[in-house]
Amino acid sequence: MDNVEETKGRAVEEKETGRVEAFSDGVFAIAITLLVLDLKVPRAEILPPGVGLAQYLVGQWPVFLAYLVSFCTILIMWVSHHRLFNQIKRVDDVFMYLNGLLLLFISVVPFPTSLLAEHIQHEYAPVAAAIYAGNSVIIAVMFNLLWRYAAHDNRLLQKGADPVFVKGVNRQYWFGPPLYLLAVALAFVNVIASVAMCMALAVFFALTGILTRRVFGRDA
Amino acid sequence: MDNVEETKGRAVEEKETGRVEAFSDGVFAIAITLLVLDLKVPRAEILPPGVGLAQYLVGQWPVFLAYLVSFCTILIMWVSHHRLFNQIKRVDDVFMYLNGLLLLFISVVPFPTSLLAEHIQHEYAPVAAAIYAGNSVIIAVMFNLLWRYAAHDNRLLQKGADPVFVKGVNRQYWFGPPLYLLAVALAFVNVIASVAMCMALAVFFALTGILTRRVFGRDA
Amino acid sequence: MDNVEETKGRAVEEKETGRVEAFSDGVFAIAITLLVLDLKVPRAEILPPGVGLAQYLVGQWPVFLAYLVSFCTILIMWVSHHRLFNQIKRVDDVFMYLNGLLLLFISVVPFPTSLLAEHIQHEYAPVAAAIYAGNSVIIAVMFNLLWRYAAHDNRLLQKGADPVFVKGVNRQYWFGPPLYLLAVALAFVNVIASVAMCMALAVFFALTGILTRRVFGRDA
Amino acid sequence: MDNVEETKGRAVEEKETGRVEAFSDGVFAIAITLLVLDLKVPRAEILPPGVGLAQYLVGQWPVFLAYLVSFCTILIMWVSHHRLFNQIKRVDDVFMYLNGLLLLFISVVPFPTSLLAEHIQHEYAPVAAAIYAGNSVIIAVMFNLLWRYAAHDNRLLQKGADPVFVKGVNRQYWFGPPLYLLAVALAFVNVIASVAMCMALAVFFALTGILTRRVFGRDA
Repeated sequence: MDNVEETKGRAVEEKETGRVEAFSDGVFAIAITLLVLDLKVPRAEILPPGVGLAQYLVGQWPVFLAYLVSFCTILIMWVSHHRLFNQIKRVDDVFMYLNGLLLLFISVVPFPTSLLAEHIQHEYAPVAAAIYAGNSVIIAVMFNLLWRYAAHDNRLLQKGADPVFVKGVNRQYWFGPPLYLLAVALAFVNVIASVAMCMALAVFFALTGILTRRVFGRDA
Repeated sequence: MDNVEETKGRAVEEKETGRVEAFSDGVFAIAITLLVLDLKVPRAEILPPGVGLAQYLVGQWPVFLAYLVSFCTILIMWVSHHRLFNQIKRVDDVFMYLNGLLLLFISVVPFPTSLLAEHIQHEYAPVAAAIYAGNSVIIAVMFNLLWRYAAHDNRLLQKGADPVFVKGVNRQYWFGPPLYLLAVALAFVNVIASVAMCMALAVFFALTGILTRRVFGRDA
Repeated sequence: MDNVEETKGRAVEEKETGRVEAFSDGVFAIAITLLVLDLKVPRAEILPPGVGLAQYLVGQWPVFLAYLVSFCTILIMWVSHHRLFNQIKRVDDVFMYLNGLLLLFISVVPFPTSLLAEHIQHEYAPVAAAIYAGNSVIIAVMFNLLWRYAAHDNRLLQKGADPVFVKGVNRQYWFGPPLYLLAVALAFVNVIASVAMCMALAVFFALTGILTRRVFGRDA
Repeated sequence: MDNVEETKGRAVEEKETGRVEAFSDGVFAIAITLLVLDLKVPRAEILPPGVGLAQYLVGQWPVFLAYLVSFCTILIMWVSHHRLFNQIKRVDDVFMYLNGLLLLFISVVPFPTSLLAEHIQHEYAPVAAAIYAGNSVIIAVMFNLLWRYAAHDNRLLQKGADPVFVKGVNRQYWFGPPLYLLAVALAFVNVIASVAMCMALAVFFALTGILTRRVFGRDA
């Protein structure tokens, strides 16, 4: 009978975790899809005379690049979030609020990205790049808080979570905040280097994810 | 055989409840993510001369604060809704319409919040603050209606719902409408006090949730 | 063994049906939440001199009414869709496309509603009201097509669906298109009467749903 | 016991696949619903004198046609995606990123479609039509990559996937990229023919889906 209770309890926990996951997925899906609203169609009448549509659109490259970068960044974060939740078997209120704050800074990504796209060829490019990298610092910190809260004393992980794996994630997550902070500082030296560093870090986190998975098997 | 019928009936009920939950989660997720559309990127050409980008953005603080407050408010409401639905095991049409009306006033939250952000430094700040608090009154009333409809005679709760817990929620929910009404009145005396009261109430409801959970265990 | 195959087949069918349901719920949730984007905050500087914020907002009543009506209309349609899907146990491609077309005209609801709000106090109110009612005609027709396609020869319903219930829904659905057509015609005679008729019909469908449920039990 | 492990492993795989499916459905649902934001309500004051509302809206036909075409295109892609996922039983990181890139180009569909609607009656119609068809080329390529990655050596398909069916999909998907490329070229010869070809291809893929299903049974 105790066993029945336990099974039932676990079913409730899984349903709750599932709802947090579904809500988060919704926020990711919306944030990633809203980006398209930043692509503005040039009206036929206001094309500058002597400039073709193709030429005009090519001149808009920062907007399209910002779209691509925002999309890929949120996609990589979604995969990371997905991977983190594969380890989570329970949620509590603190975890839900931490997760909510993480989502706040992820759903805000389109703002610093558009800011950067608008200003990258102008006077205030360093400030825009620093804000862009700064938002990534906060996201990296939130991912750390969320994971460490869940993993501390195995609080919300599945029973018998592999301690080697947990330590591996712990270590990997440490890199995020200081490296993104470096990108903030770099923005005032060289804007392009700062932006390139942010993108390289995103790709790096995407790839280490794939590698960790290779080493620890499909469920990691 | 009767038992089989009952199990099947319960499965259908759970599926229906799940769909209402998923729909509500969708509305919450969208409402919370749409907020970012209010953050407008200043165009490079229209920055006032002599004003840097950083200085300009700092001057826009009410917009960012409104974003933060709306996001946290909707997040706290989502957690409350989540918690309420942990007790709900059945839905009927009246409940679905009540839930829909609750969602109406939650998804409208970005409007009074932007209104407040736009007017907080101008002549009509008291009206804007009163509308902001007023929307919270309605949301608090709707949460009461939804919960009381479901809990009355255990109508839609799980069998054997703990009466002490139900009474606890009943009591806690009573506080909402009169306290938010007070904040409406306060808006005409002191705008900042009214806004601060609304935020304090949101934090209070977030915390009592955590406390109730501590007392009544994980499933409460 | 045949039984195992059948159970597996049914599980696949249910998963597919669930995915169509979830996709539809997503569209409903987004359509209903996007409405808030039509509520524009008046900028502090452009309030007409001598007009207070409260007075200005009251003058905007058609926009708020349109929001309320759109929200309630989509909500009622969602409940109807939910109810219809409670009877559906399988989907096929034709059904998915019919459902998609229904969603097309539901997700477009904000457009005729804003059109009506913008023009209700001006010269072209009859045209706007006719378009509003016209969209409802199409939605009523699509609901008919969807239901009749699924119910014909019990094509996609659960085994042993109650024929009395099916006929009841058949009959109820017949009313929609001609009554909404009447509202279209009425628009050119009396705009207010036409709009009132559309709202009365929405409420009527919401209530018959509740009544049908009372008569045929929870699963109907 | 090995069997228990396997069953558990499969449950985890199905959950993960389900989450990718749900995320994709979210993106589809949002992309399809956001389209309505392109339908702008003409303000009562700015209707050109002597032009009625009905006449004005009729003159806006490219916008409405673009809405219809975008909606149907995304709907057909959703059905294709749904059908493809019916064969997928596992996901890995590479698959998730490929799926993400597919979603990128699907969620961008509203942009080339509005571009086409805006320019179809002006000088740069060929460029707009080429961009429209060009986005379809990329989507067709991404569908190929996604399917071939999953189907190669049965990597992510269910055990015992019918090789005849897999080859059938392989062959059908080959047609996409070259045919859409042809539509790109055609844009510079005859805009209407290019657009018509894109629509015909969409309908063709919708119908072959239905036919394949007829031949290979419900689960195909």
